Amino acid sequence: MSQQVKKPLNSLQKAINKQVSVRLKMELEYRGKMASVDQYMNVILVDATEYSGGNPSANYGKVVIRGNNVLFIKISSDFEP
Amino acid sequence: MSQQVKKPLNSLQKAINKQVSVRLKMELEYRGKMASVDQYMNVILVDATEYSGGNPSANYGKVVIRGNNVLFIKISSDFEP
Amino acid sequence: MSQQVKKPLNSLQKAINKQVSVRLKMELEYRGKMASVDQYMNVILVDATEYSGGNPSANYGKVVIRGNNVLFIKISSDFEP
Amino acid sequence: MSQQVKKPLNSLQKAINKQVSVRLKMELEYRGKMASVDQYMNVILVDATEYSGGNPSANYGKVVIRGNNVLFIKISSDFEP
Amino acid sequence: MSQQVKKPLNSLQKAINKQVSVRLKMELEYRGKMASVDQYMNVILVDATEYSGGNPSANYGKVVIRGNNVLFIKISSDFEP
Amino acid sequence: MSQQVKKPLNSLQKAINKQVSVRLKMELEYRGKMASVDQYMNVILVDATEYSGGNPSANYGKVVIRGNNVLFIKISSDFEP
Amino acid sequence: MSQQVKKPLNSLQKAINKQVSVRLKMELEYRGKMASVDQYMNVILVDATEYSGGNPSANYGKVVIRGNNVLFIKISSDFEP
Repeated sequence: MSQQVKKPLNSLQKAINKQVSVRLKMELEYRGKMASVDQYMNVILVDATEYSGGNPSANYGKVVIRGNNVLFIKISSDFEP
Repeated sequence: MSQQVKKPLNSLQKAINKQVSVRLKMELEYRGKMASVDQYMNVILVDATEYSGGNPSANYGKVVIRGNNVLFIKISSDFEP
Repeated sequence: MSQQVKKPLNSLQKAINKQVSVRLKMELEYRGKMASVDQYMNVILVDATEYSGGNPSANYGKVVIRGNNVLFIKISSDFEP
Repeated sequence: MSQQVKKPLNSLQKAINKQVSVRLKMELEYRGKMASVDQYMNVILVDATEYSGGNPSANYGKVVIRGNNVLFIKISSDFEP
Repeated sequence: MSQQVKKPLNSLQKAINKQVSVRLKMELEYRGKMASVDQYMNVILVDATEYSGGNPSANYGKVVIRGNNVLFIKISSDFEP
Repeated sequence: MSQQVKKPLNSLQKAINKQVSVRLKMELEYRGKMASVDQYMNVILVDATEYSGGNPSANYGKVVIRGNNVLFIKISSDFEP
Repeated sequence: MSQQVKKPLNSLQKAINKQVSVRLKMELEYRGKMASVDQYMNVILVDATEYSGGNPSANYGKVVIRGNNVLFIKISSDFEP
């Protein structure tokens, strides 16, 4: 296999200190700065906002999200907040 | 990778003896002093209050919460109790 | 990290032979003397009472509860039975 | 830790050839002689009766129950059959 | 422990080439000759009939059932088909 | 044990390049040529048809099915398509 | 066994940089260029569109999907977009 294989979870490390959106299985979404992430997708967000059904429902100074509930992590580009 | 990687679960250890809020999958939340936590997010809370649907529903002198049910752990800052 | 880390599940061992309350995921609760517990939260209770929806529903001389169904274990203090 | 730690699943082995009641997650219960059990709570019952919603619903000469569905195993004393 | 411990899943191997009934979690049952079984309860049945809600719903010349969905395996005696 | 034990998942390898039917937990079925399979029942089907509720609902040139969702794999004989 | 065995997840690596469709358990589908994938089916899609119930519901510049929620990954041929 000539092409270089990049592991998805290694690539997540490059988004440290960027704004991300973490979507959980049960219609909950958390947006904030990703302070830390590991290979199970355990994530620490700071200055995070919780969205429930698309509406902001709570604020969190610092929250540790357990990876096994994560559906996906969206990495924000400059132009889509 | 030049940036220093901090593991989310290691960071949890720094919140030992602080007030935290542990949210479970099934609409239950437990607030109290985190006496102990491990890499599976098994947590011991002391002087804890259970909130069900946002309302206090029970008090616990000491409770051991199994990590696999944890959705997230919120670390309380000074100004949001 | 200067502070001493105590593992939650090791701490559970100190509650052997004490009265505990084991809450399962499906609205069931078992109260009795904890004769044995391991790191998966598999628990043996003796002289146990089952509570379903808050009401006593059955008695068990000896029951082995499988850990993966445990939500939390409450360790009874002297003043809350 | 001075007290002697007994593992819950080792203790289960002592109930081999005794009458037990195996409760599954989905409202099913199986009562019979426990011919065999392992550390995952995989169980073989012989001369077993299935109870669904508290009523006998089937008989089994020999049945192998997969441990991951087990909620608890009740060990029958002499006076509660 | 003086009594001889037999593992449940080893005992399953003795039922190879016998008629069995495999019950899954979701109200499905498969009856046929067990051609093969492993320690995860992955099973191959040949000349199998599917029962859904107690009624025959399909026939299978050869079917490989994934063990993690198995609730129990009933080993047929001579007198209960 | 004198009889030769064949592992179910090894036997699956013999069905490579044959027509199979892969049934998932959520009422979905995929029929096609099995190009590849591993011990977790991860499967690659080519020229596959999806059936939802028994009716064809989509076609797939090549699809990789994750094993943990598989309920069973039916191996087609010559006379049952 | 004379035939050459190809692992399904190794074959997935060949679809790197191709258009794929990732179907999750909960009626969600993500279509985009697969930038990365590992053996747990953790996937990074770029320029991705989310479909909910068959209709486009969101766009993602870059999204990391956790493998344990993946039902299947469809590899697009030239003629079926």
